[in-house]
Amino acid sequence: MIYVTRRLTFSASHRLFNPSFSAAENERIFDKCSNVHGHGHNYVLEVTVAGEPNPETGYVIDLKKLKAIVMREIIEKVDHKHLNHDVEFLSGIIPTAENIARAFWKILEPQITEGKLHSVRLHETENNVVEVLGG
Amino acid sequence: MIYVTRRLTFSASHRLFNPSFSAAENERIFDKCSNVHGHGHNYVLEVTVAGEPNPETGYVIDLKKLKAIVMREIIEKVDHKHLNHDVEFLSGIIPTAENIARAFWKILEPQITEGKLHSVRLHETENNVVEVLGG
Amino acid sequence: MIYVTRRLTFSASHRLFNPSFSAAENERIFDKCSNVHGHGHNYVLEVTVAGEPNPETGYVIDLKKLKAIVMREIIEKVDHKHLNHDVEFLSGIIPTAENIARAFWKILEPQITEGKLHSVRLHETENNVVEVLGG
Amino acid sequence: MIYVTRRLTFSASHRLFNPSFSAAENERIFDKCSNVHGHGHNYVLEVTVAGEPNPETGYVIDLKKLKAIVMREIIEKVDHKHLNHDVEFLSGIIPTAENIARAFWKILEPQITEGKLHSVRLHETENNVVEVLGG
Amino acid sequence: MIYVTRRLTFSASHRLFNPSFSAAENERIFDKCSNVHGHGHNYVLEVTVAGEPNPETGYVIDLKKLKAIVMREIIEKVDHKHLNHDVEFLSGIIPTAENIARAFWKILEPQITEGKLHSVRLHETENNVVEVLGG
Amino acid sequence: MIYVTRRLTFSASHRLFNPSFSAAENERIFDKCSNVHGHGHNYVLEVTVAGEPNPETGYVIDLKKLKAIVMREIIEKVDHKHLNHDVEFLSGIIPTAENIARAFWKILEPQITEGKLHSVRLHETENNVVEVLGG
Repeated sequence: MIYVTRRLTFSASHRLFNPSFSAAENERIFDKCSNVHGHGHNYVLEVTVAGEPNPETGYVIDLKKLKAIVMREIIEKVDHKHLNHDVEFLSGIIPTAENIARAFWKILEPQITEGKLHSVRLHETENNVVEVLGG
Repeated sequence: MIYVTRRLTFSASHRLFNPSFSAAENERIFDKCSNVHGHGHNYVLEVTVAGEPNPETGYVIDLKKLKAIVMREIIEKVDHKHLNHDVEFLSGIIPTAENIARAFWKILEPQITEGKLHSVRLHETENNVVEVLGG
Repeated sequence: MIYVTRRLTFSASHRLFNPSFSAAENERIFDKCSNVHGHGHNYVLEVTVAGEPNPETGYVIDLKKLKAIVMREIIEKVDHKHLNHDVEFLSGIIPTAENIARAFWKILEPQITEGKLHSVRLHETENNVVEVLGG
Repeated sequence: MIYVTRRLTFSASHRLFNPSFSAAENERIFDKCSNVHGHGHNYVLEVTVAGEPNPETGYVIDLKKLKAIVMREIIEKVDHKHLNHDVEFLSGIIPTAENIARAFWKILEPQITEGKLHSVRLHETENNVVEVLGG
Repeated sequence: MIYVTRRLTFSASHRLFNPSFSAAENERIFDKCSNVHGHGHNYVLEVTVAGEPNPETGYVIDLKKLKAIVMREIIEKVDHKHLNHDVEFLSGIIPTAENIARAFWKILEPQITEGKLHSVRLHETENNVVEVLGG
Repeated sequence: MIYVTRRLTFSASHRLFNPSFSAAENERIFDKCSNVHGHGHNYVLEVTVAGEPNPETGYVIDLKKLKAIVMREIIEKVDHKHLNHDVEFLSGIIPTAENIARAFWKILEPQITEGKLHSVRLHETENNVVEVLGG
């Protein structure tokens, strides 16, 4: 098995906030991440597909195609957006890195038809990373 | 002359928008950077001080002190904030990287009393950087 | 399953040396890593916790809490220290990256009560990395 | 189990081209990667070995030895070379990152006698990575 | 004065070779860089423009415009190319990083009409960088 | 003028300590950097030479030669060493990054005979950098 990974970036803002919590609970749990006007990140997204290389091309999946899928399905919808307000598929979800990565997985998994989606890794900062693995 | 640099990071959101422009002009000039709910970045800030090392300590300025100044004067005011709404010293300023870096320079310059502020460099993304140099 | 990772850094010195070896054996096996006064590194530590996000917070484990645990249990004890002389939990251990990472695992594993410790990865230099995986 | 990784780099050129395809097919499938004079990359290679640390040395495998093996078997044969023309063990293979990494695996696997080869990861650019895992 | 920088990347191959040297001289001077089929790099290009921010936009030069200029004038002509064979403006030039960067400067300088070109920096590898400064 | 830079790394330990200070002063001024057994870093050294490219080679200075000079004069003397105890040219100097970089400048400046030494930049950590500029 070979695993191929394409890295892409996007810039977005978000606010961590659970409407069923009181203001005090939101502040205690989410701290400065719950500031009312939100804050933002340069997210780094790594999408990994597992498979056998096609003997005629040497590709598991052409990374140009993988990039095009991720651009169309994800990046165009989240780049330079506010994740709480502007992104339909994140509506009603607390946009922690965990929840964002899982939402990306659900969208990408059926789109990968050469090989199989193996991992969605999302870097929120240089120190914080989450990964959704397996299916 | 020796130049010492301390690197710090913060995460914030902003929106590029000139209220004296029409909506169409804002969109033409600032494009996706003018989306109404804003977007965000992991900013990387590098502050450089020039001077001669103190012969007793070997420091131009103790970088722990430089860090403390930048934390108190800048990072605590901008980290996890919306730069258009939450930061007094950016009020009324279009928060391009150029304008943010210049505002940082004006705040930091009088605070540096060992050595002399030489440069404020601000990375908005891994591809976009601005620098304010000299006084 | 989702995997969340927090990255932290510390600077320390160490010396690779087995007291049951002769001086010649130590030099042959550990080469310049056995120099008598030691040498040092900027270690990069990545701690990964696996689990399901809490539906109320969207967190597997709040990375601020994970950072606090790793700071208290590890970083405060090793940062700016000599790993052969100053760290009780490394006493009597040859401080190779393998042995340091395994010692960190043993300390951290019982401290992680939301999710489960999955990996401790330790970068000794930009070229040398070790990882302790699974329990 | 502990996993130790050594990172090395090399610079090479390659051309993606299948001689059984027509010129038009090569261009459609490989696009600019099939330009006749080739192009190049600074490849980053990460080789991971799994095992238990030797209790006398604290090493799974001395990373200096692992480096020497990879230098001798791989880097000296591919660095500053054209992968289609100059490298015997890649002869007749379309030099996609997938195929190169698999060829490296086959060469390295029998050479690792302390621990066991676990992964060969090859970064073609900062955005494109492939990994061969397991045996 | 404010300095704004846009970073872009391209992958290309080259060969260092002076046709007026003997084969032995080429090998002595350029060593493995003169291998007959060439080798390649992931070049990183940083273009810096100096100026005063426009008070209406806050931009020295819109970095999207700067990117478009560099893409059109440079990247589209060198990416996935062999610099000795495929690039008209490098014809007859030994493609050292120094000479490539100087050729880029000559092309870009007249194209920058907001602010003034200040620096062209070209990273050939993570260890080798050249910079053309001032005009 | 063109500026060429070679990057190299070394790992060393040091202790910040002024023997003419009291123990309390050393601790107040140098804090954890004065711990008695020292600590260490992966230093990153960038050496920049300014000049005109030789028209026959396209080089300001062959970066392989520059690397050889820096290896011989600096890296072999400081790598895997304790900077307070093992390095003759640092004897009696408080090994702050400022003082180390200045000592490197004094050694390298007369060795550079093609072009002229322009800058010695020393990264102590990913957040702390010093630079000695001009002569």
